[in-house]
Amino acid sequence: MKRILTCLFAAALVWPAAAQVRGKIDIPNLKDFVTLKCDFHIHTVFSDGNVWPTVRIAEAYREGLDAISITDHIEYRPYSADVAASHNRSFEIAEPAAKAAGIILIRGSEITRAMPPGHLNAIFLTDCDQLEQADYMDALRAAQKQGAFIFWNHPGWDAQQPDTTLWWPEHTKIWEQGLMHGIEVVNGSHYYPEAHRWCLEKNLTMIGTSDVHDPIQAQIDFAKGGRRSMTLVFAREASAEGIHEALVERRTAIYSRERLIGQERFLKELFEQALDIKVEKSGNSARITIKNNSDLTFRLKKNRHDERLVYFRDYTIVPQGLHVITVRFQGGIQGGDMNFSVENLLTRPNQGMDYTIKL
Amino acid sequence: MKRILTCLFAAALVWPAAAQVRGKIDIPNLKDFVTLKCDFHIHTVFSDGNVWPTVRIAEAYREGLDAISITDHIEYRPYSADVAASHNRSFEIAEPAAKAAGIILIRGSEITRAMPPGHLNAIFLTDCDQLEQADYMDALRAAQKQGAFIFWNHPGWDAQQPDTTLWWPEHTKIWEQGLMHGIEVVNGSHYYPEAHRWCLEKNLTMIGTSDVHDPIQAQIDFAKGGRRSMTLVFAREASAEGIHEALVERRTAIYSRERLIGQERFLKELFEQALDIKVEKSGNSARITIKNNSDLTFRLKKNRHDERLVYFRDYTIVPQGLHVITVRFQGGIQGGDMNFSVENLLTRPNQGMDYTIKL
Amino acid sequence: MKRILTCLFAAALVWPAAAQVRGKIDIPNLKDFVTLKCDFHIHTVFSDGNVWPTVRIAEAYREGLDAISITDHIEYRPYSADVAASHNRSFEIAEPAAKAAGIILIRGSEITRAMPPGHLNAIFLTDCDQLEQADYMDALRAAQKQGAFIFWNHPGWDAQQPDTTLWWPEHTKIWEQGLMHGIEVVNGSHYYPEAHRWCLEKNLTMIGTSDVHDPIQAQIDFAKGGRRSMTLVFAREASAEGIHEALVERRTAIYSRERLIGQERFLKELFEQALDIKVEKSGNSARITIKNNSDLTFRLKKNRHDERLVYFRDYTIVPQGLHVITVRFQGGIQGGDMNFSVENLLTRPNQGMDYTIKL
Amino acid sequence: MKRILTCLFAAALVWPAAAQVRGKIDIPNLKDFVTLKCDFHIHTVFSDGNVWPTVRIAEAYREGLDAISITDHIEYRPYSADVAASHNRSFEIAEPAAKAAGIILIRGSEITRAMPPGHLNAIFLTDCDQLEQADYMDALRAAQKQGAFIFWNHPGWDAQQPDTTLWWPEHTKIWEQGLMHGIEVVNGSHYYPEAHRWCLEKNLTMIGTSDVHDPIQAQIDFAKGGRRSMTLVFAREASAEGIHEALVERRTAIYSRERLIGQERFLKELFEQALDIKVEKSGNSARITIKNNSDLTFRLKKNRHDERLVYFRDYTIVPQGLHVITVRFQGGIQGGDMNFSVENLLTRPNQGMDYTIKL
Repeated sequence: MKRILTCLFAAALVWPAAAQVRGKIDIPNLKDFVTLKCDFHIHTVFSDGNVWPTVRIAEAYREGLDAISITDHIEYRPYSADVAASHNRSFEIAEPAAKAAGIILIRGSEITRAMPPGHLNAIFLTDCDQLEQADYMDALRAAQKQGAFIFWNHPGWDAQQPDTTLWWPEHTKIWEQGLMHGIEVVNGSHYYPEAHRWCLEKNLTMIGTSDVHDPIQAQIDFAKGGRRSMTLVFAREASAEGIHEALVERRTAIYSRERLIGQERFLKELFEQALDIKVEKSGNSARITIKNNSDLTFRLKKNRHDERLVYFRDYTIVPQGLHVITVRFQGGIQGGDMNFSVENLLTRPNQGMDYTIKL
Repeated sequence: MKRILTCLFAAALVWPAAAQVRGKIDIPNLKDFVTLKCDFHIHTVFSDGNVWPTVRIAEAYREGLDAISITDHIEYRPYSADVAASHNRSFEIAEPAAKAAGIILIRGSEITRAMPPGHLNAIFLTDCDQLEQADYMDALRAAQKQGAFIFWNHPGWDAQQPDTTLWWPEHTKIWEQGLMHGIEVVNGSHYYPEAHRWCLEKNLTMIGTSDVHDPIQAQIDFAKGGRRSMTLVFAREASAEGIHEALVERRTAIYSRERLIGQERFLKELFEQALDIKVEKSGNSARITIKNNSDLTFRLKKNRHDERLVYFRDYTIVPQGLHVITVRFQGGIQGGDMNFSVENLLTRPNQGMDYTIKL
Repeated sequence: MKRILTCLFAAALVWPAAAQVRGKIDIPNLKDFVTLKCDFHIHTVFSDGNVWPTVRIAEAYREGLDAISITDHIEYRPYSADVAASHNRSFEIAEPAAKAAGIILIRGSEITRAMPPGHLNAIFLTDCDQLEQADYMDALRAAQKQGAFIFWNHPGWDAQQPDTTLWWPEHTKIWEQGLMHGIEVVNGSHYYPEAHRWCLEKNLTMIGTSDVHDPIQAQIDFAKGGRRSMTLVFAREASAEGIHEALVERRTAIYSRERLIGQERFLKELFEQALDIKVEKSGNSARITIKNNSDLTFRLKKNRHDERLVYFRDYTIVPQGLHVITVRFQGGIQGGDMNFSVENLLTRPNQGMDYTIKL
Repeated sequence: MKRILTCLFAAALVWPAAAQVRGKIDIPNLKDFVTLKCDFHIHTVFSDGNVWPTVRIAEAYREGLDAISITDHIEYRPYSADVAASHNRSFEIAEPAAKAAGIILIRGSEITRAMPPGHLNAIFLTDCDQLEQADYMDALRAAQKQGAFIFWNHPGWDAQQPDTTLWWPEHTKIWEQGLMHGIEVVNGSHYYPEAHRWCLEKNLTMIGTSDVHDPIQAQIDFAKGGRRSMTLVFAREASAEGIHEALVERRTAIYSRERLIGQERFLKELFEQALDIKVEKSGNSARITIKNNSDLTFRLKKNRHDERLVYFRDYTIVPQGLHVITVRFQGGIQGGDMNFSVENLLTRPNQGMDYTIKL
């Protein structure tokens, strides 16, 4: 009887006894790419996180993520008196659950040093244990040898950079040696405009992550519409390889707290793929019907414009919403440019994306 | 400037200034019929309800309903000192909003008398004012002349039947004259098993309604997963005509507080359309994977069965859930009948639907 | 039997059949004043609102408000073909419910004109019908004669001021004649920094209102923590008279979308009454324990400071939260000024309140 | 710099960086006892649970619990390849967090055997490791020697008792030797009426627990009003000792899914402490005003009564609700007994508590 009991338990380890409900985040694909929702910075009890690795798979499934990387600290393991294992263990434990759930799981680690250079994540590793090195440059090189994608974590973390987000000479060195491919422009609820600028200037991939340590619900209030910060990866295919190629080619955007952060070419296409915009003109007014087919919010703010074109000052397009907007033509005009900024689509540091609907 | 102002306001009356988000209730269609979610018992300020008729359209749109009927009381109009109008007005006011929103709006009224016979709804009317008659039989005949579908409301309402749900001689008379085609088996949160039995015995259509008077959110807590009670109509087409034909042919079920109430042929097909059930046998056990593709909940309770087949005592299939259930074979059996009752699918008064998965 | 039925119905009109749950918004009193939560701009079917007046009382009860004023438009009554009544009716209908619920109900009306001067609310009226005047100055004078408190509504409403929030000569005239005592600095979800400045410059009372037309839940998502915009009135007593005196004396603040807007003396006292702050110093660090005893959120952002004092860049104090903040002393200092701005407490237009915790 | 970093991290281990919000469950005290909300069956990664022990403290704090016991399995440790430690570790790790949070933490273990006798929890242990014994009787005796309170877990668990909830001879033996002091009448969402009966017959303490393995939010939907199953302990004081004494004296009730299960003397007093009931009689009717000052729900169902007393068939008193109920007197009576059962207060297996309001 004990045997049977154990066997029942064992099954439960791969797929939870309780039902799992797959979440869905409605963000459109681009014309040439599939949009994958990814979180590349996650902890478990194998470093200083507070959950077992399989919990991270259940969370990803429930939240509608496509891919995650568990990136436990190499150098910081406060639970090591009780939890002793190879740095590969959190991946190995989570892997069967990831397969059962259809989540792409990427092997990773967090190189965890004082500033400079601070913390860096290496993902797409083959053996995390090789990153245990006295010199962080050796750790980075070990990661690179495995074909890793490496990004600098939370460059503006106040525990390491209390007053200013600085790029240190050490970062120049790492970057020049090809050991830094991206930066976290968003970590958790924090957005770093300086990192945003560095990514644009130095052609680095923009990354957004949760850096979750606790059960995700202790940090995100899903009932209030909260979502973890994540990286949208515009991939040729929904696979680990597809993600790797897209990261290298910098085809990402960040989705965090209703904001999208990324290159204008991606944000503009997301905006246009998300919305059906229909314009009907009649006499001295136009009626614009906008159907938002996505879970994205868009916050419009009127821009410099011909004042004979009378429309909203600001306007919010809500997820899945159907909106009817009226524009009036004054002073005899028959149409014009309805200019606005989409305030929560950041194409430059702290700066919304300009857009025009031609009437 | 005043003119423009007025004109802006007028536009707002048809489509609200705020965005509207269309709700969706995932209940499968049947093989031969489309499943329409309908509420045929609703009040406005034109009787004793507390909202303007257009609010009822916005509510239906937001909740994912396909059709509603506003059925203000003929004989009970406590606001008539301030709101004075034809009994057709609530329909007329709501109609343009219904068209804009794509909601099927059915003209109706509630004949409102002391018990017996109590209250009866007549829907698919052409002129509600004709129902203002001294004798309720005349009112019912006026409705019938217009081709109305007539159903008895809340037969177990404690204000009219405080201790027992009685069928009075008056109901026999109404029914025998073909003036009663259905009964509310559910009104609001109340289920009347006696009415359920009458519908089965007398071949009457089963109706479930909200009977909402206040803003719907004052009665239903949507954030907690609440939904109004409604009638599922299995129609040949999504139109007023389609609904009328289905009601006459008794092709309905009631959806109320996670329960479905209706004829077994419909509930069984809904159950099977909602679920993908996959059975994998291996050695002395079977693994049953169930994917619920609907928003319905199914509460299973083990039935009389071969005790060598070891499975759950009770089990809940959650909306959109993916479930893995393990069944063990003992005593050398290789399979068997996994019997259970779906407790919240009522095919007889207060009685769940039996079902078997063959292993 | 009919009589009894009617009598039951009648009771329901004063207190709803369904249970009512009194809401509570935890905002502290000031040392010398009780903090009352008030909404002075509300519509019903008696102008262009979409609910019966009693609904507004049930909403206020459920949301934890202390006082409301129903302010139907004098000049704009699109439902008048069906709803015909004195301008006093919405008050009269709501009054018994307000008494039963313990809500202070203030008689009011909205004078509704094109810009200039736009819309103005007059509250504490004795007879709303007197405000039906061809000339808006006559309407204002009629209100004044009744002892009304008058405020200018939504000065930055884009339908009337599409591109800039202007103070017109007409407003100077009204103000100089003592016919404007306050301005809506917040209307619904809109904040008007210009109006904020005018209130400071001209000693006008700052008002924030919902201007609700639909059922409140159609505008505010309470499950997601939403609240209507309201005026906090710091009154000597919880009565209509107490509110009137406080409004005249400009003892108000606005609570809207997690922000407080008002004079620094009030916001600072609210901040200090809401929080228990305990500082423990030990060696080269201090531990600050903050218990928030209110439902208010405070968003702190570090200000100019001695950089040897190392603390957060920004920090959010959540409702009812218990927070432990660590501050480090570097370079041999033993303490210092922990400066920050409380970003969501606006004491000047678009500007947070500065605050210092001495360590 | 590394040192400082580590030190910051260390602080975070005791009190989370994020704010903690203390929950509150409004259940009244009894006249002579304080009502403590306790969960005595909880798992962590130290057996087959999926969270670090400190998470259980944060959960208890957030949910408003007073006391918990972490009861990892002695014999079932599927994670032991990675997590290797004494059976006392989960307690030791959680203890500083419990102290910081003011949660009473009770040392416990789950003796985990095939049926019979199945699983038993021993709490108030001093050294869990002593329970590692080949013979379960030895394990129970070791617990008893430490002064433990011992209860039988989930007697109706379908994995161990698939079709019937049986009391085995082994349980008689354990019970007769004084090694079983209580039974889980509720485990998670399951209620076992047989166990309810055994507790009444054999004078055993009724226990309700969550048996939580995953992060609690993965099992309980708090946003929908869900709560974990728990034991209400009616203690002389809010301390571990107070709880122990109350458990031994069988002063408990179970709170699970809106139900209370326990001895009538406790449930009746909770009912009366929770409600203010005011009766006003006038002519041929009475008006009953009920204010529920608790978070408990009470579901009333009319009982055998004088039919001249006309009142509801069933009625729900909602948490914190204010209710007005009208009762009519017919046939010349002037009052009477308003009898009902409180259906969700189970004083006997599956049976509600009878109650009468005298009019």
